[in-house]
Order: sequence, then C-alpha cells, then structure tokens
Amino acid sequence: MNCSDAHAVLAADALLAADLRGIDSHGIARLSGYVRLWEVQRVNATPAIKVLHETPSTAVLDGDQGLGLVVAQEAMKIAIAKAENVGTGWVSVQNSNHFGIAGYHAMLALEQNMIGIAMTNASPLVAPTFSIDKMLGTNPIAVAAPAGNQPPFVADLATTTAANGKLEILQRKNQETPTGWVQDQSGQPSTDAHILKKGGALLPLGSDRDHGSHKGYALGAIVDLFSALLSGANYAPWVPPFPVYVPMPTQQPGKGIGHFLGAIRIDAFRPADAFKKDMDHWIEGFRNAKPVEGKSNVLVPGDPERLAEKERRQEGIPLHESVINDLQVLGQRFELPFE
Amino acid sequence: MNCSDAHAVLAADALLAADLRGIDSHGIARLSGYVRLWEVQRVNATPAIKVLHETPSTAVLDGDQGLGLVVAQEAMKIAIAKAENVGTGWVSVQNSNHFGIAGYHAMLALEQNMIGIAMTNASPLVAPTFSIDKMLGTNPIAVAAPAGNQPPFVADLATTTAANGKLEILQRKNQETPTGWVQDQSGQPSTDAHILKKGGALLPLGSDRDHGSHKGYALGAIVDLFSALLSGANYAPWVPPFPVYVPMPTQQPGKGIGHFLGAIRIDAFRPADAFKKDMDHWIEGFRNAKPVEGKSNVLVPGDPERLAEKERRQEGIPLHESVINDLQVLGQRFELPFE
Repeated sequence: MNCSDAHAVLAADALLAADLRGIDSHGIARLSGYVRLWEVQRVNATPAIKVLHETPSTAVLDGDQGLGLVVAQEAMKIAIAKAENVGTGWVSVQNSNHFGIAGYHAMLALEQNMIGIAMTNASPLVAPTFSIDKMLGTNPIAVAAPAGNQPPFVADLATTTAANGKLEILQRKNQETPTGWVQDQSGQPSTDAHILKKGGALLPLGSDRDHGSHKGYALGAIVDLFSALLSGANYAPWVPPFPVYVPMPTQQPGKGIGHFLGAIRIDAFRPADAFKKDMDHWIEGFRNAKPVEGKSNVLVPGDPERLAEKERRQEGIPLHESVINDLQVLGQRFELPFE
Repeated sequence: MNCSDAHAVLAADALLAADLRGIDSHGIARLSGYVRLWEVQRVNATPAIKVLHETPSTAVLDGDQGLGLVVAQEAMKIAIAKAENVGTGWVSVQNSNHFGIAGYHAMLALEQNMIGIAMTNASPLVAPTFSIDKMLGTNPIAVAAPAGNQPPFVADLATTTAANGKLEILQRKNQETPTGWVQDQSGQPSTDAHILKKGGALLPLGSDRDHGSHKGYALGAIVDLFSALLSGANYAPWVPPFPVYVPMPTQQPGKGIGHFLGAIRIDAFRPADAFKKDMDHWIEGFRNAKPVEGKSNVLVPGDPERLAEKERRQEGIPLHESVINDLQVLGQRFELPFE
C-alpha cells in the first residue's frame, strides 16, 4: 500500500497483538478490509498526522485518514509525553480509521509506569434502549494498569452485550445467539446471528431496560463524546462504516472516525511501588475469591487474553480458511508470495 | 453534628439534588445513616481536608474522614482549577465517606464549560463473574457534558445491573426482582429482593457471563482502581460498609473510601461553541431516532432525572413515611423541631 516501513511495523504489531491475544476478529483477518478502504481512498497510507490544538495535558490530533492502527499509537505517544510533563495526557483524534483492539493501545502506557486508556467510536450497529435505529458503534473502552508481581490489569470491552466479532463466529457456525444480544428490524428480541444484515441491531451492554441497557447505551455515548465530539470526528449514526460495501452515511458532521487516548502517570498520584503493591493485593484478592460451584475460578480482566497469548506464542496462531484465502489473494495482488 | 455552615450547605445541596432528580435512595433518606456514622466516629464533621500530593493536572486529597458529600465537592473544585490551568484536572480521594449521587459532583463542571467526571467505590455488595464472594461496590460512573440549546448530557450509572436503591424499593413493596439482578449465597440465580441479607449478592451490569457480566465487573474494577488504588483508600471487599451495623472488614489496606473526580475543559480540545453545536446535533439525532412500537421515545442520558426535577420543583418532593419518621427522630435528637 506504500506505507512507510515505520508505519507498516506499527500496524503489523497492532494486528499481531490481537491475534496473539485471541481476538481473531481484529487481527490479520482485518487486513483485506483495510486494503479495500485504501483502494476506495478512504485510508491514506502516507498520512501527515498533525496536532491541531493542544494544552499541557491535552491535544487534538488529525489522523489525515491514516490507518487507525498507526494514528492511535502516535496519539498515545503524545498522551504519554504529556503525562510525563504534567501528570496526565489526553488526546482526542479526528479523521482516523479503525484502530484494531483498544487494549493494545492502552497497554502502550504500561512500560512507562502509567495507566493507559483507549476508546474509539465505530460503525453504527447498536440500537440504544427503545430505538429501532442503529445510532452507535460497539464503542469499546480499554484500561490497562500495571501491577508488581502480578501481570497487568487489562480491561478491554465493547459497550455492547456482545461484540460484533462474537456474532461473526456464530454466523460461521450457523448457530443462534443467546437472547439479549440482538434485536430485529422492528426492535423485537431475536436470536438470529445474521439479523444485522436484515435491518436488526446489536444491543447495548445490559440487553434490555430491565437489565440496564440504558447504562450500556450511556457508556457507548460517553465513548462517542470523548472520541468524536471533543475531536471533530463523525459521531453517532454518521460514523463511516468499516465495510466498503455499506453506503456512507447521509451526512458527515465531522472527519473520519474518532479515538480517545489517555495516559495517567501513577506517581502523579502515589509512588508507583506503593500502587503496584496494592494492585498485587487487589488482584490476589480476586483470584482467591470463592468461585461458584462448577464455574471457573474468578478471573481478573486481562487473564483470558494473557492465557491465549501464552498458548499462541508456543503453538502458533490458528488461521481460519477464509483468512488464508484472503491473504493469498492479497499476496497475488501485491506480488508478495503467501503459501 | 457541628459541621461548619459552609459544609452543611454543601452537604444539603448534594442531598437535595438527589431528591430533586428522583434518586430518593440518595437524598434526605440517607441523613440518618450519615448521623449514625458520625455517632460511631466514622464521619468527622469538621474535617481538615488536605492535598497530599499534586502535579499540574493531578492531586491526591485526604478527606480526613469527612462527609463524602463535602469532600467530593472540594475535590471537584481542585479538578476544575487544574483544568483551567492545564486543560484537565484529576483528583483521587482517600479517607472519605459516601458521597451521595455521582451525577451531582460531575455536574459541578458544567457551568465552567467543562465535562465533569465522578466515580466512587462503595460497600462490597457485588459478586464478580463466577464469584460467590462480594468483592466490589456498586461503584458508579457519572459523566456530565454541556450542550448548547439542549440540556446537558448527564450519565450516572451504577456498574451493576440494578443499583441497591432499586432493590430497596422492591423490598418495601415485598416484590421480587427481575432475573439477573441478584444471586443467592451459593451463586445461583435468585429473584429475592431480600437476598443480600441472606448471603446473596448484586450482579455486575450484564447479569451473567453470556450477557457480559465480565464487562460490568471490569467497569466496577476500573472505578475501584481510580478511586482507591490511585489515592490510597480501601478497595475491593475491604471498603468500609455504609450501614454502621455491618461489621468492618477484616483488614484495612487503605484509608476510608475513595473517589475520583475529573474535569475536562472543552476548549482544551475545541472551541466550546463548536462542541456544543455538535452536542445539540448529537442529542437531537437520538431524540429523533425511531422508537420501538409501544415503547417510550428514545431518551438521552439525564432526561429522566431532569423531568423528575421539573416536576418536583413544582409539586414538591414526596417523602416516604419511614423517612419522615427518621427526620422526626433526628429533629428531637438535635433539638430542631420537624413536623
């Protein structure tokens, strides 16, 4: 695509992190999608990323239509530098594209003894409580915090009951969803994993009003405000869709999609060693909590992904047949043999 | 209780805001609980609130065992002053007590053209996914953002499927809860609104693993990290309980309970007018979303509380008989007639 070597490495690292951590929907499987966006000139492979406005603790970044995988990492570098100077750094990004897994960007802060935060808005797939219309993306929130002897705390969650990737897995297996994941085109409950193509929608975390879907909706909205209203990106149902075959929204109130990256220097609050000692104690408390009979032990956010990474670093990353086919087509297209 | 007049006004304002906004569980109904904490010397009515450490964008505040209602407002003032200077301000608080509704503190930022954020940890009532043990509080998150012609966006949500106040309403009516709100002492599903007194627990937002309870658990954990691990307050199951009759936890890894207050100056990112114009557009988009047949129109976070406040400012605040009795007892105790 003519990315610089430096940007290609950043993008590859972010995709590889997703595959290693077991988030197959956001790894190399997405590569062909990014290439298609580049082909229709919605991704700029050689972006001139620039700061539009800043204060000691904040910045707005124009991603120049670059790969979100790259733009978000540049944004996090700025957030970390600001946190180094004044305790915290917060960067809202406009004019970007899909950034992969949020957790990867949040984790960039860990080595600096900082808490990392990453959010992004995304293609509108989610119907807020009482709505038929799809008004928000799965708008994830990631928070990574360092511990001492324990591995870091890494929460990375779509603000929906189930992420779209979970739906895709069921589609491939031709299985139904649990109740509470999706609704049909009239807003009635559905268990059809293909319902999004039939006018249906994903549901906010909580599933329905009785179970707190208004809270999942509010969380997705907060991500939209921080990512797009603070940066000047597109928001709500006007976020450009990831698949190129989906028509663009009828209006473009901003530029591209939006992200929000934050870094909090631990010792801007307390000595990092004291914090990490408490984090270890916190984590051990949860690991030792009494589990429900017949269930797994109580997990700490980040555990499943860390276990997946451990296994995949040894056993390799399994690729779905359709992904291998995609990569072979891409290999021919770019004259890079892939067997 | 010998609070200063200034502190008494701050505390009364915070309680009144809850009653006006329809959050009856967090208004004047709590007054007797605060007094009981003062009687056992867990609330200090004349606290010397002080900054323990700070950077240009951060501070740790020692609440000196004061009323959280007061301490959190002092923390928010510091956050706002820092945001004025360097774009954002973030204050983590130790050694505090129950701070009322999170939304009130977040909304203090609105008049300054800032986004306000408020979180607190709380008495352990919530069992994380797969756990029998109660390891977290209902740990709410509030975010308030100003709009232009539209009223502000105010999200204020417990990170559980249902807040404890919702359970208390059902207890008074002797009604069952919907499924997915609580579990019994062995971690099995329950609909008994009294189950917390029988060893049961509230469930994280999402209710069960299939419906994303691990996400609600992660969100509650993030609130705990920001409120207590950054400040040096007690955390996880070791947060002191609000009711004085509940035994104190077996260990005290920190001091009191913890809060986290944040202020984001809008024009540290974009001109406030441009942001507010987009906020109006965002809000109108949601209000105009097509509703599911037979349901209410699509609401924007803050709408229900604003409608309650409008009604109650005209009609007055209804008080439950038990609250009136409590206030009469308090009136006698403090020789302040209440009829």
